[in-house]
Amino acid sequence: MTRNQQLAACCAAVGLDLHEALQIGGQYVPLMQHGQEIHISGQIPRVGSQVVVQGRVGDSCSEANACHAAHIACLRALVLLYQHLGSLDGVARILRLNVYVQSAAGFTRQSEVANAASALLYQLLGEAGVHVRTSVGVYQLPKNAAVELDMVAIAA
Amino acid sequence: MTRNQQLAACCAAVGLDLHEALQIGGQYVPLMQHGQEIHISGQIPRVGSQVVVQGRVGDSCSEANACHAAHIACLRALVLLYQHLGSLDGVARILRLNVYVQSAAGFTRQSEVANAASALLYQLLGEAGVHVRTSVGVYQLPKNAAVELDMVAIAA
Amino acid sequence: MTRNQQLAACCAAVGLDLHEALQIGGQYVPLMQHGQEIHISGQIPRVGSQVVVQGRVGDSCSEANACHAAHIACLRALVLLYQHLGSLDGVARILRLNVYVQSAAGFTRQSEVANAASALLYQLLGEAGVHVRTSVGVYQLPKNAAVELDMVAIAA
Repeated sequence: MTRNQQLAACCAAVGLDLHEALQIGGQYVPLMQHGQEIHISGQIPRVGSQVVVQGRVGDSCSEANACHAAHIACLRALVLLYQHLGSLDGVARILRLNVYVQSAAGFTRQSEVANAASALLYQLLGEAGVHVRTSVGVYQLPKNAAVELDMVAIAA
Repeated sequence: MTRNQQLAACCAAVGLDLHEALQIGGQYVPLMQHGQEIHISGQIPRVGSQVVVQGRVGDSCSEANACHAAHIACLRALVLLYQHLGSLDGVARILRLNVYVQSAAGFTRQSEVANAASALLYQLLGEAGVHVRTSVGVYQLPKNAAVELDMVAIAA
Repeated sequence: MTRNQQLAACCAAVGLDLHEALQIGGQYVPLMQHGQEIHISGQIPRVGSQVVVQGRVGDSCSEANACHAAHIACLRALVLLYQHLGSLDGVARILRLNVYVQSAAGFTRQSEVANAASALLYQLLGEAGVHVRTSVGVYQLPKNAAVELDMVAIAA
């Protein structure tokens, strides 16, 4: 399978449409390229018009569900890159990934949640998917999303 | 009105002085340009020496007041750009906006608060103000500010 | 003392080894350079395999300990730059510093905690260490770390 076929398969598995315009929540754009740098807006685990993983991780949301949320949010970012570049092969590098986990008091496994996104990037992009990362536990996320993430990619 | 006149009017409406050196809180600089990229430090709704919108949004601070906080913090960022470049016309693009909302448990309208900043950017800069954005709800902000935001702009 | 000797002395004082590969927590890299920009992953106050300053600042962790945490996390970032560039003299500029403080409700001195990192950057790098900064108070950090920080540096 090519990278693009793999992305399509991953999207289909969670109900995302690779060719659909992704819904966003406010007065901004989901992606902007300046020079080779491609900035992506904060992505939450939204499929269609629904945020499919909500709640506070370590309390009303399990760590496994939070990993699923990170996976879907990361897929959305990859779909945006695919739609912008025409192919994942246009991604030379993921430079930075920021992961925000809506956390319960005492939940300290934000890195483990973020690993679900990092693993997907490596699975779909190989060495080009290896990145610098920051993950933190925040108090609330838009739409009660369990996870939000943004990234900076480098175009080939 | 020119962009600069609009900025001056917006500043006057909230008590900000377009030509005054903005007070900051620590051992760093409010703005730094590298190549075309202009990075701006986290801005809170400070007017003169006072943080004018404090509290936890969804509890001791209303959503309307939080929007006002985002508006003022964004104005401060625009004042910094104006002072650095001599005119808002020197801004080719706002590349990224990060918005941190000091949130109550259960307050999930961080995007709506961030829209107050996004709307101001569009009002003053037009298409050049359209940006990529991440907004999250954090537990505490410096000086009990209701909102903090930072951005990256691109110089013309 | 040269910058590198100063860094070695600061590391020795807290038990960090300037030449040891720093342990990280997930499927990503600690540092990546693109063009002149060097991105560094989120650093917590880890020495060897132990996170040496844990807890919620303003409650189970004092502000003084939080400053120590920021100091160690910042040292780790500088060690990464040293290892990557062969010398701190290869750092032309610290462009941006983001500081996340695991905060108690009502703790609003995130800027004062972040100052411990900013002061270290200035001490070791002089004018090249002056940067743009954002500091926020988050609800939970990986491994219950009191402070996490990341940065973007510019290579000479």
